[in-house]
Amino acid sequence: MSGVSDKRPIGVGLIGFGTIGTGVAKVLSQNADVIEQRLGAPLRLVRVADLDTESDRGFDLGDIRFDADSEGLVADPQVDIVVELIGGYDVARRLILRSIENGKHVVTANKALLALHGAEIFAKAAESGVDVAFEASVAGGIPILRSLREGLAANHIDALYGILNGTSNYVLSEMESTGEDFEVVLKRAQELGYAEADPTFDVEGVDAAHKLTLLAAMAFGAELTFKQVPTEGIVGLTPDDFEAAQEFGFRIKLLGIAKARREGGSERIEVRVHPTLVPIDSLLARVDGAMNAVAVIGDAVGETLFYGAGAGEMPTASAVVADLMEIAREIGRGGAGRVAPLSYMPEVLAPKPLVPLGELVGSFYLRFTALDCPGVLGHLAGELGEHGIGIRSVLQKGRGDSAASVPVIVFTHPAPESAVRAALERIDELADVTAPTRVLRIEEEL
Amino acid sequence: MSGVSDKRPIGVGLIGFGTIGTGVAKVLSQNADVIEQRLGAPLRLVRVADLDTESDRGFDLGDIRFDADSEGLVADPQVDIVVELIGGYDVARRLILRSIENGKHVVTANKALLALHGAEIFAKAAESGVDVAFEASVAGGIPILRSLREGLAANHIDALYGILNGTSNYVLSEMESTGEDFEVVLKRAQELGYAEADPTFDVEGVDAAHKLTLLAAMAFGAELTFKQVPTEGIVGLTPDDFEAAQEFGFRIKLLGIAKARREGGSERIEVRVHPTLVPIDSLLARVDGAMNAVAVIGDAVGETLFYGAGAGEMPTASAVVADLMEIAREIGRGGAGRVAPLSYMPEVLAPKPLVPLGELVGSFYLRFTALDCPGVLGHLAGELGEHGIGIRSVLQKGRGDSAASVPVIVFTHPAPESAVRAALERIDELADVTAPTRVLRIEEEL
Repeated sequence: MSGVSDKRPIGVGLIGFGTIGTGVAKVLSQNADVIEQRLGAPLRLVRVADLDTESDRGFDLGDIRFDADSEGLVADPQVDIVVELIGGYDVARRLILRSIENGKHVVTANKALLALHGAEIFAKAAESGVDVAFEASVAGGIPILRSLREGLAANHIDALYGILNGTSNYVLSEMESTGEDFEVVLKRAQELGYAEADPTFDVEGVDAAHKLTLLAAMAFGAELTFKQVPTEGIVGLTPDDFEAAQEFGFRIKLLGIAKARREGGSERIEVRVHPTLVPIDSLLARVDGAMNAVAVIGDAVGETLFYGAGAGEMPTASAVVADLMEIAREIGRGGAGRVAPLSYMPEVLAPKPLVPLGELVGSFYLRFTALDCPGVLGHLAGELGEHGIGIRSVLQKGRGDSAASVPVIVFTHPAPESAVRAALERIDELADVTAPTRVLRIEEEL
Repeated sequence: MSGVSDKRPIGVGLIGFGTIGTGVAKVLSQNADVIEQRLGAPLRLVRVADLDTESDRGFDLGDIRFDADSEGLVADPQVDIVVELIGGYDVARRLILRSIENGKHVVTANKALLALHGAEIFAKAAESGVDVAFEASVAGGIPILRSLREGLAANHIDALYGILNGTSNYVLSEMESTGEDFEVVLKRAQELGYAEADPTFDVEGVDAAHKLTLLAAMAFGAELTFKQVPTEGIVGLTPDDFEAAQEFGFRIKLLGIAKARREGGSERIEVRVHPTLVPIDSLLARVDGAMNAVAVIGDAVGETLFYGAGAGEMPTASAVVADLMEIAREIGRGGAGRVAPLSYMPEVLAPKPLVPLGELVGSFYLRFTALDCPGVLGHLAGELGEHGIGIRSVLQKGRGDSAASVPVIVFTHPAPESAVRAALERIDELADVTAPTRVLRIEEEL
């Protein structure tokens, strides 16, 4: 393929014509002027495949071929780049691998697939000399993968903290501002379209863990699958938690956290997803509603933050088309698939030892559920003390009914997670403790 | 030049071995492992030039050639990429043009030069088929130029708002939190090294205007010099301004603002630098101290924000080395200077009509200085009313001394800037108005 100047249009084939797919078609059409200007060549949607060829998407494909034949699409010589937006595992994986075999570059938003089968897909792509780009798979429209790959490339990444799931963040923001229960807010989120009918992946932290897996791969060159990421969701949080957090200057956010621990010549990686208390005056605490943000700390650049819409038709399409433009530019310049593939993934992905959760040291928020009777706090404090865990603050609101259970909230001084777990095993068996203790981690240095 | 695989080291020549230059040498040395891993080839500092070859920079150059011969450096066949960090206009311009003529790629942090002579430099670079990269020139370590060029490339950019000058932001943050006068805070900033001995460029908004010029070029393809940017600095702000702003839910930030106004088929650009009232719960309001941030609004992606250190040895070096790595990767892949230069600037830069300030419509903060006597507010309100300017709130604190001047602060409803200017011309001539009125603009939709 020759240089940009001959203006050969780059052909795009789109598999999956749902919300995001429609957004991609819209952006390619509505922004064709700036895209061609910035690229030096037109980027043209030439074929669309979806099992549902009937529904009205509110976008007129005009002459563009549209049918259910995705196998035909990935073999179509007019298609230079395949956009995979059907999601899920089996079919998506087969179509992506087929595209790669056929010498097509691939753009995908499929975090679940990459977080499980990324290694296989990237290896095949390198073999075939094609690119697999996936900016849209993490934090929607925020160019965070690019920023790790390019803008912050000169840094050892020390840590990253991401609000990666818009549904959870919407629920947390609403619970905090209204004081309502989790179930009430989740139901409203579903009615408003912020949460899916089955919200499990979102509220259980699985979606955030998928994205964290990809971020950690980019940041640390860590070969990782999301199954290795300790994950806790936001289910079970109560209005009491938000009230207590606020009283002590914190907000609760579902964070994906990845840190490098470099000791001697070796590097271990710490990855986890869980609801976290963050200081109320930190930028991450200010990320409200369905928005996403990723704070990245590099050894040279220091603290950075990237903020934007983490989902939605047009923001996600913005990221997909950015990937298309980058690959198209390389095709035009004779780079893509000819000299060497773009390293969307770091050149060298290697398994890195993970730091076990128990080794982590931090401050904790503990919500005990205990009978409202004298001596309870003494029992709790005694067990914590025996395990070497210092108490920073206690919040106990008696309800004057000794038969009822009340929350007793304790903020600890920094302690090893293993000590906290050991103490809780004992505490949760005490006679005056009536329900399992809820543990939240505190990230104070944000 | 051949592919990455032969691992030919890429030679870097550094002109200007001051703070940033030392940072670049440190990053290239300390982070050589990740740089080579991510690049597939070593990036090697081969030569350094500075007029001062004596001072101790706290970094040992070892065997690297170090002398005052910058002319020799830009002709040295070992040097593939020249890093220009001497700043200023004449010498820097000559050395950059000489580098380009010699077929060297250039990385620079010199916003002042590019904001004035950018057109000439980019034209020469295109002619010679070399790259000129300048991420470090805007917002230090934040990869904002890359994000505009790549991550948000599929968008029409609607607007951007930047906190682009760390010195000003430090002074504003301190004035707000301490209630101290401008001069007191500026003096402390100088003592702490946050402000230079001659802080004019920073506090007058000139540095921010340089950076805004480059951002607007990237975002809108606008051929612009900073002389076209209406610029107001932070000099003359008083503790009263911060107190009044806070009372109404605002903070004061020095913003560089660029917006596109698209009407019919035509596009006009609005650019300006001035202290601005921003809503206290916006993310920009939370950018404190010497940090920088740029909010970018794209038609597909919606609202985004990029945050980080805007200056300093290591953050700026992070951006310089990111540029070096990108060019080095292209050299390795046979792209740079061979097929087509990387478009660090948009392919097509064209002069765009600017929206005159008078046409802008917005809400205003007006601080009148008037005698503390009956009837004053009536006079002010009367003049505003005659010019069609609605008053939203008034803050007047009488000091019980009719001979003294007091501030009278007015928040207006949205009005054309031209009407406000006309009203103020009349008001500032009133007998009971004793000093020129201070005007601040309000950006409510942030």
